[in-house]
Amino acid sequence: MDPVEKLLALEEIKQLRAKYWRSLDTKQWEEWGSVFTEDCWLKFDGGVSTGGGDPQTHPTVETRKGMVEFVSNLLHQAVTVHQGHFPEIEFISDTEAKGVWPMEDIVEHATTWTHGHGHYHDTYRKVDGKWLISTVHLKRLRMRVTTVGGIPGRAMPNG
Amino acid sequence: MDPVEKLLALEEIKQLRAKYWRSLDTKQWEEWGSVFTEDCWLKFDGGVSTGGGDPQTHPTVETRKGMVEFVSNLLHQAVTVHQGHFPEIEFISDTEAKGVWPMEDIVEHATTWTHGHGHYHDTYRKVDGKWLISTVHLKRLRMRVTTVGGIPGRAMPNG
Amino acid sequence: MDPVEKLLALEEIKQLRAKYWRSLDTKQWEEWGSVFTEDCWLKFDGGVSTGGGDPQTHPTVETRKGMVEFVSNLLHQAVTVHQGHFPEIEFISDTEAKGVWPMEDIVEHATTWTHGHGHYHDTYRKVDGKWLISTVHLKRLRMRVTTVGGIPGRAMPNG
Repeated sequence: MDPVEKLLALEEIKQLRAKYWRSLDTKQWEEWGSVFTEDCWLKFDGGVSTGGGDPQTHPTVETRKGMVEFVSNLLHQAVTVHQGHFPEIEFISDTEAKGVWPMEDIVEHATTWTHGHGHYHDTYRKVDGKWLISTVHLKRLRMRVTTVGGIPGRAMPNG
Repeated sequence: MDPVEKLLALEEIKQLRAKYWRSLDTKQWEEWGSVFTEDCWLKFDGGVSTGGGDPQTHPTVETRKGMVEFVSNLLHQAVTVHQGHFPEIEFISDTEAKGVWPMEDIVEHATTWTHGHGHYHDTYRKVDGKWLISTVHLKRLRMRVTTVGGIPGRAMPNG
Repeated sequence: MDPVEKLLALEEIKQLRAKYWRSLDTKQWEEWGSVFTEDCWLKFDGGVSTGGGDPQTHPTVETRKGMVEFVSNLLHQAVTVHQGHFPEIEFISDTEAKGVWPMEDIVEHATTWTHGHGHYHDTYRKVDGKWLISTVHLKRLRMRVTTVGGIPGRAMPNG
């Protein structure tokens, strides 16, 4: 890629990530699925890894279809807010890239809500001329769980 | 626009939005007004629209002059923090664009403070060679109101 | 710089800032030091400056070596989250730039945690073909201190 093609690809990948968060938080599940490759996977660490290895890793969710099913079941009834801050993106080839995005999320269920911070470690692949997310690994810096009506907790038990 | 002109216009619109938030939170009202077209308008939804339509919409504020008056009266004495995260911006023509920005705001008055999340749905127009914000519609994902000394509330009554 | 060189420099400076926050929050101190010029300095205002001048300014920390020592001693044991939002960056010459970044930080020590918002006012310098951060001045809009198990405080004493 020449410099201009690279800058356009960077903007496309950033807007793809913005679409991921907007469609997730507004519960547009079909649109959310459209940002992934068919064979994508998602792994999110269950514990806080600041200062050490990951104490607990949730099972990987696989394929676009599997991810839409899993995530929509988990979050459709919840109020969610996902934020991504300025990323570091690097191209591996003309059709492959990787990126790290600082993140914050709030997930509010009927009786508890969680507030977390961390980094998404992504890979991207260009398929039929369009950049898509191929893998996502979410690592946590910090996680707090609050019971409605209670005082914010210090951290998750495994944090 | 060719690709480079498009990339420069994207950067200009993003820095325009950054100027909006910085001048708002540091109470530079004349500078804040300078980011808008003369005939701009602003609408902010009063309720949380996650999972449904908007239960309550505040009246639209119109014109640059009207907006500066309205917003400076509302917020000059408050401590405010407004954040915008990575946007989706699309060009309609060489002089018109639209954008969606994920947002978070904290507005702290003497006895209460609000903490909200949502999306700005903007339009932009190029006037005399400069991009300006022509309309802003703020939709909410989540809103919490805290009374000073009390426990954070679950949501606004109409949320 | 021509427009494409300028766009590439903007992306490089933004990714440099992203590297600063990621390496700080994951406690990679050598990598964190690598984003600065050898003669850099850092000043962070101790008080909230919304609506007036700064009531208290911490001493400036100087040189890359001095900053790594000071900041790693201060934060290595803490859980930290630093976020930067969309910046305003301006070039002074082909090798000098300045930028303003809206920011949020959480610093969680054993018995207290702080949650702050403000702006980084940076300068950058190109050294041996690479952009580096030469100075950082952090100004605060808002700061809250919470004692673990207690109710979030209104503001720092000098806020």
